[in-house]
Amino acid sequence: MIGLFDSGIGGLTVVRELLRQAPDASFVYLGDTARTPYGNKSKETIERYSLENAAFLLSHGATSIVIACNTASALAVDALRKAYPTVPIFEVITPAVEDALAATHGRVGVIATRATIGSGIYQAKLKEARSWKLEAGKGKQGLFIQAIACPLFVPLVEEGWLNDDETKRIARRYLSSLRQTHVDTLILGCTHYPLLAPIIQRFMGKQTMLVDSAASVIRRVLASGEIDRRGEQKYFLTDLSTRSTEIARTWLAREIVFALASVSA
Amino acid sequence: MIGLFDSGIGGLTVVRELLRQAPDASFVYLGDTARTPYGNKSKETIERYSLENAAFLLSHGATSIVIACNTASALAVDALRKAYPTVPIFEVITPAVEDALAATHGRVGVIATRATIGSGIYQAKLKEARSWKLEAGKGKQGLFIQAIACPLFVPLVEEGWLNDDETKRIARRYLSSLRQTHVDTLILGCTHYPLLAPIIQRFMGKQTMLVDSAASVIRRVLASGEIDRRGEQKYFLTDLSTRSTEIARTWLAREIVFALASVSA
Repeated sequence: MIGLFDSGIGGLTVVRELLRQAPDASFVYLGDTARTPYGNKSKETIERYSLENAAFLLSHGATSIVIACNTASALAVDALRKAYPTVPIFEVITPAVEDALAATHGRVGVIATRATIGSGIYQAKLKEARSWKLEAGKGKQGLFIQAIACPLFVPLVEEGWLNDDETKRIARRYLSSLRQTHVDTLILGCTHYPLLAPIIQRFMGKQTMLVDSAASVIRRVLASGEIDRRGEQKYFLTDLSTRSTEIARTWLAREIVFALASVSA
Repeated sequence: MIGLFDSGIGGLTVVRELLRQAPDASFVYLGDTARTPYGNKSKETIERYSLENAAFLLSHGATSIVIACNTASALAVDALRKAYPTVPIFEVITPAVEDALAATHGRVGVIATRATIGSGIYQAKLKEARSWKLEAGKGKQGLFIQAIACPLFVPLVEEGWLNDDETKRIARRYLSSLRQTHVDTLILGCTHYPLLAPIIQRFMGKQTMLVDSAASVIRRVLASGEIDRRGEQKYFLTDLSTRSTEIARTWLAREIVFALASVSA
């Protein structure tokens, strides 16, 4: 059974992708809504929370872990693999980088939380892959990389302002330098951001391809065979505010019952 | 020694007011930046965090507690007073309501987080006081009350966009119904909001008086005599991201050393 966790309800975009690609998959989801968001917090705090979340999922039947959160993927994957060396652990960053490199003509943008961008992990993984790309003869020119933190995108999504003028203006402010440098491929490096894809696509223009890390990681999970298809699906949150459950139902377009999880040590 | 806590760094507006009114006051401040914000979370979670925060402050020498957070004041003051019946506990809501009632001609607005507005505490306390006001012969007309949640104000402040066009537009959206109903007094029911006071004042107009709960509560604390003036001042955060410390220094206009606090049970 797959265990997925996120700092909150953003990871439900990964669940939505899992349900789209494998409706009968068994999984257990944990959203750490009591401590959300992770995006402005330190590595130490994000590691501690991620270890607690993984322990909860494993104790509830998970046999593999999907870190359905870019911030935790960026900052806690090493700590998780060290703590659970025999458990398959999927993070969302490598698949998104691979998909971006397969698509780009040489100009890649990344948008994410402050913690993810500050970790430098996207930039490092794109640079690593650059030599791979040159070896494969796909391009001679160097890879141009531009990474921008967009801290207000998560609260705007959680406010439900998915197609509002205020959101468009803030998107313009965050994204204008990416448009000026003509990135041809843009990684949505936060699991909340696919909800803003229409606004982002409209501002960046049709010539920019958006890479959604949710779709990228789920393709890898399904390809790995780490999946049980008995359709057992459980949802936990660490805080049950009515707001979270409303947003979750809208996103997944189905009625979901969330159970309260206690994860802290 | 006074112990103050907030969900994060917003409570430093209360510290700033304390330093302004009593520069030599001894205090210990705790910002729960590892679990910030509280504003969209449930009563159960906010109570648990507040009890843990108060226990930390008392174990670090505090002899009274100031809940420097409207959300925790709204949802956790009863739990705190029950847990610590002999400790003086100050919350920010009653002082702000009293100051608003002293100023208003009968039309009061309140802006705060979703959790604070949803608790209904401001509305209830204003209604209670209405009869007091009528008895005191201050007015014959009923009191008009309008309460609006402004969930994006906290992330805008934390992004540092204190005087930006995007913030002005969002303020206009949240506040326009308050302007239409001509509230004469507006309670800033979140410790982050005084940082947006210039934008809010400009949009509402000079005829609207803003009530800052930080100034209101500190006047009550000083009047109570619960204060030691040896100037011992300590600052703790539960997460030490560089962002928090930068914002804190700007707000308080002084160099501050934050220590890391571990508060969870």
